[in-house]
Amino acid sequence: MHNSAILLVSCPDRKGVVATIADFIFRHNGNILFADEHGDEESNLFLTRVEFDPAEFDFDLSEFVQRFAPVAKEFEMQWRLAHSSDRPRMVIFVSKFDHCLQDLLYRHHSGELKCDIPLIISNHPDNQRIADFYRVPYVVVPISKDNKTEAEEKQIALIREHQCNLVVLARYMQVLSTQFTATVGSQNLINIHHSFLPAFVGSKPYHQAFKRGVKLIGATAHYVTEVLDDGPIIEQDVVRISHRDTVEELIEKGRDLEKVVLSRAVRWHVENRVLLYGNKTVVFQ
Amino acid sequence: MHNSAILLVSCPDRKGVVATIADFIFRHNGNILFADEHGDEESNLFLTRVEFDPAEFDFDLSEFVQRFAPVAKEFEMQWRLAHSSDRPRMVIFVSKFDHCLQDLLYRHHSGELKCDIPLIISNHPDNQRIADFYRVPYVVVPISKDNKTEAEEKQIALIREHQCNLVVLARYMQVLSTQFTATVGSQNLINIHHSFLPAFVGSKPYHQAFKRGVKLIGATAHYVTEVLDDGPIIEQDVVRISHRDTVEELIEKGRDLEKVVLSRAVRWHVENRVLLYGNKTVVFQ
Amino acid sequence: MHNSAILLVSCPDRKGVVATIADFIFRHNGNILFADEHGDEESNLFLTRVEFDPAEFDFDLSEFVQRFAPVAKEFEMQWRLAHSSDRPRMVIFVSKFDHCLQDLLYRHHSGELKCDIPLIISNHPDNQRIADFYRVPYVVVPISKDNKTEAEEKQIALIREHQCNLVVLARYMQVLSTQFTATVGSQNLINIHHSFLPAFVGSKPYHQAFKRGVKLIGATAHYVTEVLDDGPIIEQDVVRISHRDTVEELIEKGRDLEKVVLSRAVRWHVENRVLLYGNKTVVFQ
Amino acid sequence: MHNSAILLVSCPDRKGVVATIADFIFRHNGNILFADEHGDEESNLFLTRVEFDPAEFDFDLSEFVQRFAPVAKEFEMQWRLAHSSDRPRMVIFVSKFDHCLQDLLYRHHSGELKCDIPLIISNHPDNQRIADFYRVPYVVVPISKDNKTEAEEKQIALIREHQCNLVVLARYMQVLSTQFTATVGSQNLINIHHSFLPAFVGSKPYHQAFKRGVKLIGATAHYVTEVLDDGPIIEQDVVRISHRDTVEELIEKGRDLEKVVLSRAVRWHVENRVLLYGNKTVVFQ
Repeated sequence: MHNSAILLVSCPDRKGVVATIADFIFRHNGNILFADEHGDEESNLFLTRVEFDPAEFDFDLSEFVQRFAPVAKEFEMQWRLAHSSDRPRMVIFVSKFDHCLQDLLYRHHSGELKCDIPLIISNHPDNQRIADFYRVPYVVVPISKDNKTEAEEKQIALIREHQCNLVVLARYMQVLSTQFTATVGSQNLINIHHSFLPAFVGSKPYHQAFKRGVKLIGATAHYVTEVLDDGPIIEQDVVRISHRDTVEELIEKGRDLEKVVLSRAVRWHVENRVLLYGNKTVVFQ
Repeated sequence: MHNSAILLVSCPDRKGVVATIADFIFRHNGNILFADEHGDEESNLFLTRVEFDPAEFDFDLSEFVQRFAPVAKEFEMQWRLAHSSDRPRMVIFVSKFDHCLQDLLYRHHSGELKCDIPLIISNHPDNQRIADFYRVPYVVVPISKDNKTEAEEKQIALIREHQCNLVVLARYMQVLSTQFTATVGSQNLINIHHSFLPAFVGSKPYHQAFKRGVKLIGATAHYVTEVLDDGPIIEQDVVRISHRDTVEELIEKGRDLEKVVLSRAVRWHVENRVLLYGNKTVVFQ
Repeated sequence: MHNSAILLVSCPDRKGVVATIADFIFRHNGNILFADEHGDEESNLFLTRVEFDPAEFDFDLSEFVQRFAPVAKEFEMQWRLAHSSDRPRMVIFVSKFDHCLQDLLYRHHSGELKCDIPLIISNHPDNQRIADFYRVPYVVVPISKDNKTEAEEKQIALIREHQCNLVVLARYMQVLSTQFTATVGSQNLINIHHSFLPAFVGSKPYHQAFKRGVKLIGATAHYVTEVLDDGPIIEQDVVRISHRDTVEELIEKGRDLEKVVLSRAVRWHVENRVLLYGNKTVVFQ
Repeated sequence: MHNSAILLVSCPDRKGVVATIADFIFRHNGNILFADEHGDEESNLFLTRVEFDPAEFDFDLSEFVQRFAPVAKEFEMQWRLAHSSDRPRMVIFVSKFDHCLQDLLYRHHSGELKCDIPLIISNHPDNQRIADFYRVPYVVVPISKDNKTEAEEKQIALIREHQCNLVVLARYMQVLSTQFTATVGSQNLINIHHSFLPAFVGSKPYHQAFKRGVKLIGATAHYVTEVLDDGPIIEQDVVRISHRDTVEELIEKGRDLEKVVLSRAVRWHVENRVLLYGNKTVVFQ
């Protein structure tokens, strides 16, 4: 496994961006491993992800910000540099349903998810045993109508204390306040919704799907914004159902879907493959 | 290929329905080829499709209505008997887009769709040549704001003249009046909508999908009711897209999807595999 | 959840089988919940699965064998009666890879797999902790070239002691002897092979797939016969790969596939939905 | 639609390749639209596809070969430059089955396939009418055991006369001679095989699949080499089947699959998205 550096850039689409970035890396003796780019015609935006091997770089990567600044300024770039060895610090929020939690912990344990999980936060004690099995601290922050503000403050304090920069809602059954979302930041806050958005927004989507008589059910992983179930979509998938399936069977089939869709989204986020533009995402694979 | 008879029944769910039907057919020397059933717990409804070989039946099938009546009455059945040799008479409505039309005509020609197509009705002359190739009469009924009522009356007259009992809207870009829908009957009127319903109801669903940033696009074949894009769903499917796809590419990818979804729905309808209950369908495969 | 009885029948295809079975159940005051059947034209074989509610049956189900015998004899049936409350006793065989084991135990725990798991047998101690988490006894039976016969004898003894009637090889990396297979019986022995059979039989199928440059990889759950990877297929599925995927990434993507394919096969077996005929299976869903 | 230039390169993987190419294009005032690359670790091969807008290039593209030669030499590149306006000249070979032929002609007509089709060659007269509809010349070259060599010579003469650089076997039911394949060149010769290769090589794959009892059937588009059904795979896909499907139904379901898989492969080839290395393909999308 290479220890690589990943340069993520958004800027107005202008001639020479690709060449200038490639040249900068090459001139300093880096080796480009993968490069992917996307031009959005509507907004005239250019987005790129360049992964390079900095082993023989002619300056220390700690100087990259300073060295790359003139290039970034010239092309009006929004950018950041990530290292494949930087492990995001992910906190998992969960309520009673344990399938997404189990799945994320298993994938983390097996090495698929290259992040740290310093903490699980739940409004219920039910999943303590799973957390113990994977040796991840599990903190219960009970939530009721009356204590929602304090509870969220406590959650924020825990996120800060553990220096988490990614919050994953793994079937966390509480609506977050605007304040919470703004504090964490949409771009650090991933949710799994158990429908093919924008169909069946809101609560009980499997019941809605059953009632409407659809022939496929879906799941959607998205960044969380102030508007419920409306944030930028990272990944979606569907599974076939039939008239024979009861709501309970939709819920059961949906579990497998939710796990797969959420884990893909988390993985791509962790590997710095997702870029936001407007209310959409680019996923560089 | 057997020449078979198909008995379609809906009735309140009561003990003995399956056995009574099976016994009736057996007693009269029929041989059950396939039997499928569904019980809907919510409405306590029982639906079944029994396909049998009547070659050695001890009375003529023309007497079936009379002979079966006592059984039907006892169990309060809504029912009908179809023959695999009865070919539904399908009229295809089309505007300018030709992909669904071509696909239906090809499948009809290849023997996949066991129906007759006495007529194609269009509001544009563009697809005359395709109709000629497949030797199907093509009638242009122009539609404008001013003549909508007369145009629909002319369509209805054509449907009656050609004794059509199935109207398929193969990307027909006109909204039908409530009057038209009621006259034809929802259960004889199939539309293809180019989205994964209930997402993206109404016009330009690919543009809506592009704007929302979904990761899959869909198509839905459904019976047409008075409420736009709200009828009972017969079939749906999706295809993966990415940030690279423009609206034009969604439209292109969607074409393949629309063809497949519509042709499956038409085929199942033609083979008497679809039963309606409430706003849903049972598809017996 | 109904406590239902499931009648599974194979016999020569003759007129009246369906009606005779339906009538037998109805006459004794059973209520048919689902019935599915399949006629295989090549072998003139008729197979059916009839699920019925015996709550008001007019004799005790323990007498079913005796009462149904005349019918079975008349139609030369091979048949058996299962009860939805009969829980098969499944032993899981596993080596070091834990993903299928975890998945089966999770689904068992969540109620998806309606069987008992009295025992896990492994040739390695590695997965003890997982077994402990789910509170299933874990027995290590080490295998080497020299002790294979004794090891298998010990396994058979354990299977008998725990009265297991289903052996699931959840990535168990030892080839079973003909003797073992014959003792357990093909119809009680399910394996997951990590390729789309019959492609890539034998060892290291992901390496074979990588070398051949396929664009999809697969997994196959099948009953085990004497011929390696040649038994009746219960379920298969595939996932898309690209030139970017290394063998390691095939293995990773394959894990998700193997879990899903094996768990579907086990579930259908446990629910008495799988019937064998020749080297094929019917799966009644 | 941009009129773009596409540079395709294979070379040993060395630092600076990406930057050198990007810099060359930028220095001459081209604008990179898309760039995709792949490094094959086993063979230490680097492959790239760079699409750029040459509208403001500072020399005429006709000089590209000469100007790029020093760069190519330095990095030991195998390369070529294509123009999006260069339309490959494709001849379609077909026997009696018309579904792939129809599909390719439809997609060509609708603008999806950006190539010319100067000619269809068949060993049967059956598809003349389809060719006429799409106004493509149709030449019948009958083939028997006795005239195979002369027939192939005639085919080669036709290919040369019409300056075709792509031969697509759209369910052409004759095995080509080694001589024919060598003359046309594997990289210009695409076949659709109606199985998920490497399963079911050779004749009657649907019959083989039926006999084996698989739960999915597949189709594979590949470049043709001397070894039957063994060439580099461009695209594959599968569709679910069940015990209910007869061989005839496999053939019917397979038709839809073959069309889609072949048309994708042809499209990618035509858009210069496919690169060969060893017995594999890279498909840049």
